[in-house]
Amino acid sequence: MTFHPDRFFSDALTRLREEGNYRRFADLERRCGQFPRALERCEGTSRDVTVWCSNDYLGMGQHPDVLYAMHRAVDEVGAGAGGTRNISGTTRAHVELEAELAGLHDKEAALLFTSGYVSNWATLGTLGARIPGLVILSDALNHASMIEGIRHSGARKVIWRHNDLADLEAHLAALPAETPKLIAFESVYSMDGDIAPIAEICDLADRYGAMTYLDEVHAVGLYGPRGGGVAEERGLMDRLTVIEGTLGKAFGVMGGYIAASAALVDFIRSFASGFIFTTALPPAVASGALASVRHLKMSQSERAAQKARVSQVRAGLDRLGIPHLDNPSHIIPVMVGDPVKCRYLSDVLMSRHGIYIQPINYPTVPKGTERLRITPSPVHSGTDVAKLLAALGELWSQCQLARVPQAAE
Amino acid sequence: MTFHPDRFFSDALTRLREEGNYRRFADLERRCGQFPRALERCEGTSRDVTVWCSNDYLGMGQHPDVLYAMHRAVDEVGAGAGGTRNISGTTRAHVELEAELAGLHDKEAALLFTSGYVSNWATLGTLGARIPGLVILSDALNHASMIEGIRHSGARKVIWRHNDLADLEAHLAALPAETPKLIAFESVYSMDGDIAPIAEICDLADRYGAMTYLDEVHAVGLYGPRGGGVAEERGLMDRLTVIEGTLGKAFGVMGGYIAASAALVDFIRSFASGFIFTTALPPAVASGALASVRHLKMSQSERAAQKARVSQVRAGLDRLGIPHLDNPSHIIPVMVGDPVKCRYLSDVLMSRHGIYIQPINYPTVPKGTERLRITPSPVHSGTDVAKLLAALGELWSQCQLARVPQAAE
Ligand SMILES: Cc1ncc(COP(=O)(O)O)c(C=O)c1O
Ligand SMILES: Cc1ncc(COP(=O)(O)O)c(C=O)c1O
Repeated sequence: MTFHPDRFFSDALTRLREEGNYRRFADLERRCGQFPRALERCEGTSRDVTVWCSNDYLGMGQHPDVLYAMHRAVDEVGAGAGGTRNISGTTRAHVELEAELAGLHDKEAALLFTSGYVSNWATLGTLGARIPGLVILSDALNHASMIEGIRHSGARKVIWRHNDLADLEAHLAALPAETPKLIAFESVYSMDGDIAPIAEICDLADRYGAMTYLDEVHAVGLYGPRGGGVAEERGLMDRLTVIEGTLGKAFGVMGGYIAASAALVDFIRSFASGFIFTTALPPAVASGALASVRHLKMSQSERAAQKARVSQVRAGLDRLGIPHLDNPSHIIPVMVGDPVKCRYLSDVLMSRHGIYIQPINYPTVPKGTERLRITPSPVHSGTDVAKLLAALGELWSQCQLARVPQAAE
Repeated sequence: MTFHPDRFFSDALTRLREEGNYRRFADLERRCGQFPRALERCEGTSRDVTVWCSNDYLGMGQHPDVLYAMHRAVDEVGAGAGGTRNISGTTRAHVELEAELAGLHDKEAALLFTSGYVSNWATLGTLGARIPGLVILSDALNHASMIEGIRHSGARKVIWRHNDLADLEAHLAALPAETPKLIAFESVYSMDGDIAPIAEICDLADRYGAMTYLDEVHAVGLYGPRGGGVAEERGLMDRLTVIEGTLGKAFGVMGGYIAASAALVDFIRSFASGFIFTTALPPAVASGALASVRHLKMSQSERAAQKARVSQVRAGLDRLGIPHLDNPSHIIPVMVGDPVKCRYLSDVLMSRHGIYIQPINYPTVPKGTERLRITPSPVHSGTDVAKLLAALGELWSQCQLARVPQAAE
């Protein structure tokens, strides 16, 4: 029985299709300045849609300061970095952005990666592989990039129940005092929108002598008076060994980073394969991100407007009895619980209402928890919100989807 | 004995320093339109330097078409993609670039990644993890990103001696016929500049029923009548299962990709964590890369001019008796063989001659094979070449470095 590659690949894809988990990507054309409006292309035609599932949470991807910085860098420096950070790829923009990010998180140093995914994978991978005997205590719902980094490191991994302090403590207490430990977790979990008890986790870390690694990918730019994330908002940045973030979501561009002590950052810079052996971010990307970080350090208006929109959508869903996860963040997961239904709802929202909300299916969320994940932003208008709610209400009635019983009044 | 993180990190860095392998990054400001000229900043001062070690091999990072495409995309679409490819991050530029790359390599489909590193890591990682019993036969000098991907996959790995067909065949013959096999290798090896015997490797693959995975990162844009790489130049593209490339070197921007059958590409698209769980490339990056690929598909002048410069530098080094690896590519490794000397030479070139050639030390090359890696490009002038040769000649005399005996005439 010889192996037939393309038959093997096709069979696997057929199984995905049968499960309803096969992914079609919407082909979108954002229009700068008109976001969340975009043009969706499908089978030769195109139509106007309103995007309700972007991670450009604050619309910084069309902020004039960001665009100006990108244009300027393209004019002055050119397109790509032309090399790895070590071999001719470090420019002023990279150096300044690292300094800015260190400042944002009140850390001695920061290090840029090509993405948030790579920053998690490379940093956890390197710490786990290089610190002899390190045990990584990983929250059960950590992002794929953290999971892959930990797995790749070959370090011993202990998974603790999501946001469960008692379970984390039990695992910590079971490890010898002299064992090096690292607790890896996120602040805002992107699919449920819940937030970790960061202070309490840091208390446990102190008690048991563990390092802490916090992924603030869905929080940087959004929380804290300067956009430093939930740890900034709660005054906890100095208690974390490593804060990791992205430049591709609220900051609206691309790239990832860690902020930590100078020694830790220099260690990762010197040993992490995923940092060393890859072309640096284009200077224009670094410059755009720098402008975005600087803007959100000072400006509160985007964060305030986002909060208002989030409340408005949430209140509307409640009025309609449409089930969504209750959480303290800006992420509104409307639960569907079935991949085929979820895809269907998304298709109808797009085709009938010009509303684009990508269905979130496995492997992004566990099977049975399929959802529509809504991310209101300051660029959505009151009219956009009204239309969204009307469309969802109509669909929920037509499809006889379950509603949440209204609280007795 | 409790674990002290920062002491641990500092000690590791001290060891690197003692070995001469601690890296300082040159802080450069490329000036668009003036490349290979750049401004180097160091301790508060700055000076003009000529970059001789960039992987922007053809100067496409300042090509007007590329810059125009980036400006236009920033104006029309904005800064970042705002989501993963699946969740609102796919734009026209991504779709068109994938079609263009598939065409470039005469394959049914192509898939973009955030970098060449991620494309190797994610593709090899996914194939190795998902194809039951797959054995990956990996050239001993494969790039870190391939090594990490293979390691991460957990698949059985067989390392064959670099470019050694007999050794590869012995390993293939030792595996059962029904075992799925994948031969992973590069065309141009970036540090030695030698080129794999691609046709003969494909012959072996056919004979033993193996798939082939070719990294053309240092060849795309540079070789072949349309810049399709060495496999295009040699008319072998249809014999490779997967061709992998980068948009960050000869194409001058950033990003990575694979080109392969539609089924394989769809399989990777559907299952590769490193593809799925990360923000898509900014549309401006994809657009810039698209313009670059299109330009180099038609234009021969950059490739021709590069070849001429490479020959000129090589001939000059030969005249001076400066030892460099003989190879058929555009990469000129001047061998030094000691990390401290290598760094010293680089420092003197920079400080006395305004010539920037990053020392290539461990872990990029094996210890004892430290080198200055020179990459002549069409944007270097005849005067630049003369200055480079004069500086190297002077240094070789002053430092009494070994010279190659001149061939008897
Ligand atoms: C929690 C978390 N960490 C890291 C990442 C990766 O960040 P990036 O998109 O910059 O690769 C993501 C999403 O993409 C994420 O949700
Ligand atoms: C052979 C090879 N493959 C892959 C890569 C990674 O490509 P990228 O720089 O686009 O991440 C590199 C260098 O960086 C390389 O030399």
